[in-house]
Amino acid sequence: MNDLEQKRHSLAHLLAGAILKLYPEAKNAIGPAIENGFYYDFEFPEPVSEKNFPRIEKEMRKMLKTWKKFEMQEVSAEEAKKYFADNPYKLELVDEIPQKGEKITLYKSGDFTDLCRGGHSENPAEKIAGDSFKLDRVAGAYWRGDEKNKMLTRIYGLAFDTKEELDAHIAQYEEAKKRDHKKIGKEMGLFVFSELVGAGLPLWTPKGTLVRETLNDFVWELRRAQGYQKVTIPHITKKALYETSGHWSKYSEDLFKINTREGHEYAMKPMNCPHHTQIFASTPKSYRDMPQRYCETTMVYRDEQSGELSGLSRVLSITQDDAHIFCRKSQIENEVFGVWDIVDKFYGAFGFKDMKVRISKHDPKTFEKYIGTPETWALAEKNLMELVEKRGIKDWVDGVGEAAHYGPKIDFIAKDNIGRSLQVATIQLDFNMPKNFELVCTNEKGVHEDVIMIHCAIMGSIERFMSTLIEHCAGNFPLWLAPVQVKVIPIMSVHTQYACEVFEALRGASIRAELDDADENLGKKIRSGKVDKIPYMIIIGDKELESKTLTLESRDKGNLGSVTTDYLIDKLSTEIKNKA
Amino acid sequence: MNDLEQKRHSLAHLLAGAILKLYPEAKNAIGPAIENGFYYDFEFPEPVSEKNFPRIEKEMRKMLKTWKKFEMQEVSAEEAKKYFADNPYKLELVDEIPQKGEKITLYKSGDFTDLCRGGHSENPAEKIAGDSFKLDRVAGAYWRGDEKNKMLTRIYGLAFDTKEELDAHIAQYEEAKKRDHKKIGKEMGLFVFSELVGAGLPLWTPKGTLVRETLNDFVWELRRAQGYQKVTIPHITKKALYETSGHWSKYSEDLFKINTREGHEYAMKPMNCPHHTQIFASTPKSYRDMPQRYCETTMVYRDEQSGELSGLSRVLSITQDDAHIFCRKSQIENEVFGVWDIVDKFYGAFGFKDMKVRISKHDPKTFEKYIGTPETWALAEKNLMELVEKRGIKDWVDGVGEAAHYGPKIDFIAKDNIGRSLQVATIQLDFNMPKNFELVCTNEKGVHEDVIMIHCAIMGSIERFMSTLIEHCAGNFPLWLAPVQVKVIPIMSVHTQYACEVFEALRGASIRAELDDADENLGKKIRSGKVDKIPYMIIIGDKELESKTLTLESRDKGNLGSVTTDYLIDKLSTEIKNKA
Repeated sequence: MNDLEQKRHSLAHLLAGAILKLYPEAKNAIGPAIENGFYYDFEFPEPVSEKNFPRIEKEMRKMLKTWKKFEMQEVSAEEAKKYFADNPYKLELVDEIPQKGEKITLYKSGDFTDLCRGGHSENPAEKIAGDSFKLDRVAGAYWRGDEKNKMLTRIYGLAFDTKEELDAHIAQYEEAKKRDHKKIGKEMGLFVFSELVGAGLPLWTPKGTLVRETLNDFVWELRRAQGYQKVTIPHITKKALYETSGHWSKYSEDLFKINTREGHEYAMKPMNCPHHTQIFASTPKSYRDMPQRYCETTMVYRDEQSGELSGLSRVLSITQDDAHIFCRKSQIENEVFGVWDIVDKFYGAFGFKDMKVRISKHDPKTFEKYIGTPETWALAEKNLMELVEKRGIKDWVDGVGEAAHYGPKIDFIAKDNIGRSLQVATIQLDFNMPKNFELVCTNEKGVHEDVIMIHCAIMGSIERFMSTLIEHCAGNFPLWLAPVQVKVIPIMSVHTQYACEVFEALRGASIRAELDDADENLGKKIRSGKVDKIPYMIIIGDKELESKTLTLESRDKGNLGSVTTDYLIDKLSTEIKNKA
Repeated sequence: MNDLEQKRHSLAHLLAGAILKLYPEAKNAIGPAIENGFYYDFEFPEPVSEKNFPRIEKEMRKMLKTWKKFEMQEVSAEEAKKYFADNPYKLELVDEIPQKGEKITLYKSGDFTDLCRGGHSENPAEKIAGDSFKLDRVAGAYWRGDEKNKMLTRIYGLAFDTKEELDAHIAQYEEAKKRDHKKIGKEMGLFVFSELVGAGLPLWTPKGTLVRETLNDFVWELRRAQGYQKVTIPHITKKALYETSGHWSKYSEDLFKINTREGHEYAMKPMNCPHHTQIFASTPKSYRDMPQRYCETTMVYRDEQSGELSGLSRVLSITQDDAHIFCRKSQIENEVFGVWDIVDKFYGAFGFKDMKVRISKHDPKTFEKYIGTPETWALAEKNLMELVEKRGIKDWVDGVGEAAHYGPKIDFIAKDNIGRSLQVATIQLDFNMPKNFELVCTNEKGVHEDVIMIHCAIMGSIERFMSTLIEHCAGNFPLWLAPVQVKVIPIMSVHTQYACEVFEALRGASIRAELDDADENLGKKIRSGKVDKIPYMIIIGDKELESKTLTLESRDKGNLGSVTTDYLIDKLSTEIKNKA
């Protein structure tokens, strides 16, 4: 437990201490440190809500000054039960601790004693700044997460090392709320969910599909230049494929399984690699055929728990812009760096700069989770580390236990416009799956040589990338990506004909224009253009009609003055072409 | 039973008569008329194969002259059993006939008497030409199709009205065998099957994917011009969607069903329409928004019996180039004719001309198979008939019982290059599913108005269309569709550099060129180009290198003489653009 986690854990105690002081009838259940802070669950004799926070925080700060240390005391189960005689939650926990072979320890600070395994700041009064934490919100939570149990009141707190960091977090959180892709995606009409189809299964509207396809075309443009070829596979397979790939044994609970009318077992694909091996393996390959670079944007399916589903960030049907390179050992460097170039170009276009690199390795302690031998893993990980160093990355993060079940990977961690770190692209080096499928090529000497696979999705998942991108740019897609690029608004019906000419000229130049000639007031039309975050709006009134010019309003730069239709088409076409 | 069917049925009797004459120990089981001819199953005391056909046919022709009529005799079960005392197959059938409430009838012609329900030519000797039939092949067949029963010998015969028709059928069949898409698809490397993935689940190679995508782009080009928009849906759904659409009750056994880890029931989509309704329904629609034309090329899944799977013609994962138009009643004609225009343009490009039209209607006798009311069905069918007549089609086929479960359809029947009729595109008019999903738009008076759906796939299924197209053109795809358009072959290594320049120039002009500079002999390279059915080949030797010209060899037109690279690029680009 690091220093900050110890502070957060201590603050959970402090919250419980303050609550029992203010609400002596309350019963405290459990309270751990969590990301960004802490929480504690209570049974209250009366409703407690966020409006009670100032009083509770005041008591916490007062109490904190007196908490100079945590005193540990090991006790017997009997002693513990006596101490917590009127707290059924603690009594339940006390009963379980000896069963797990652990000792029962109490921690006391100030007047407050809690059942606890330890891990606190040694001197909270000195270590924890009174303004570095804040109560955040109240939520209902079943005791032990089981809906058959009593509903308790969970109080969440935020805590950081300093007030500045706390404030920065709150500001980031407020900004993130405004940028929430679920909210913006709905306002912009990009995707919808249906009760009948179910959670985690987004349906993409024409506008959302246009953005998806434009992103995907960009990835394909970068890949085509490197000689990739598209392939197509079905979304299901007989069990046999995943028995060979290791998915059936290592990945089984994530699989959507199907029993056919004839009683055969099939599964929906959770990954595309095993299918792609079968295309590679369908004809003998010589060294002259290598490398083969297959790519395919297609959906994979994972049987996630419904409680974990959220907007586009966690879905049941995931669109991967997947690719698999089948190459010789001698080609690994060139191929990995080729993918890396694509990653740099793609993310660079959205202003994701200086991405962090993590090398995600296997965890030797849980080797049963992986396919292959310790030797193939050691070799693949050594290979990746050398490549990362050769690429000039010194400060890569060591991600033990973060590998795929078939091989280690390079993960790219981007920082978005409001400072959040997000895992994006990945390059995986796989010595194991090709072995399971006995993939070989004939080398210059006419001898079979093992083939290596490189798995490399650029966006990773289109759903995940879209959620990241929407929040990164607050829905303000760059012109080339915006589903509607220009909105043409005639002020009155007398201006409609000219507006229509401009609209047709834009469409003729393959610019995605929208003509808003509905019988509504101008203010409403402009507001709706702003909600849709359309990069350019053109409002056509008497002045424009008379001079046959256009007044151009940019979403990002404000009023750009008067232009001709030709100039406008030229300007926008150039911006689109340059992905400006 | 029509005239030809009666002949075929009579010939089945004749075959059995001849067999019992030549093999008195044989036991005849059953023998019906089928498409293109007839068969009869026998238990033989000795192996009988195709080499015995001349003798059997000779006997049949001899016997035919004496078969002037069929005499019917109604008998009791007892009499029948006595007659067939040493034929266990007939005895089994005799036992069942009274249970079905039918009478037992024997039919005698010449010396041969068979248990039969009737339906023969009245005077076979006169009606059936001796050279209008032919024995075809021998196959094993379990008695009553049950593998627990004895394996019998099935003799197939071909039969038509005249020798000319028989010969034409045989010639067509021989030609079809040469054009079999499974054979050509494999030779050209378009798609493969994998034992591990399973039957009915084709995997598309880079070349095959290129053809699929080029076809799909063509459909999209035609649709985009009419204002279609792409949407994207997941391939699974909660059961609830199909309960509303009627798929769960009317279509259940074709569904691949999934039980999630949390015990929910999901299904893989067998059609896209229910999902698309949910995009339409996600926001209120006004008359100004109508029609909405959604299209999406995506896979659907049907749990077919494995015995029915065959190449690309019958698969488990079917890629539909699907579209759904949501429109007002007043817009039906315009929308249906718009789709019809696309169908004409698309199929016209491949030389499928004068397609037949079938109006596929519901069968009132099995109304429980459909959703909706008799009134909505009558209305939709009337609508379609009026539109077909208005389009100038008088000789449409009446397809009672061929409708989808939600509505009637116009099916287009194409004739391929070897004269076979094949169902291709379809336009379906659906008053029922929009009702089930309560789809409405607000009309000019502010009142809710029912919305109509038009379901319209152009290729239908890409797999099915590809199998049709490959056999139609014997793999000789038109230039614009060929996965490799030009193959450049240097004769010796000294010619490679110039060949490479030509190859790069072609690629630079977006022509799909292949450079074959492998260290192999010229004949082998040319043969492989022919197997791949590449439209153009360029062979580069001393003459070409010296004069900096190219000798152009066309797959379809032979040697086209000497051309420059610029001329070649111009010629091919024009052909590609015009889909020549």
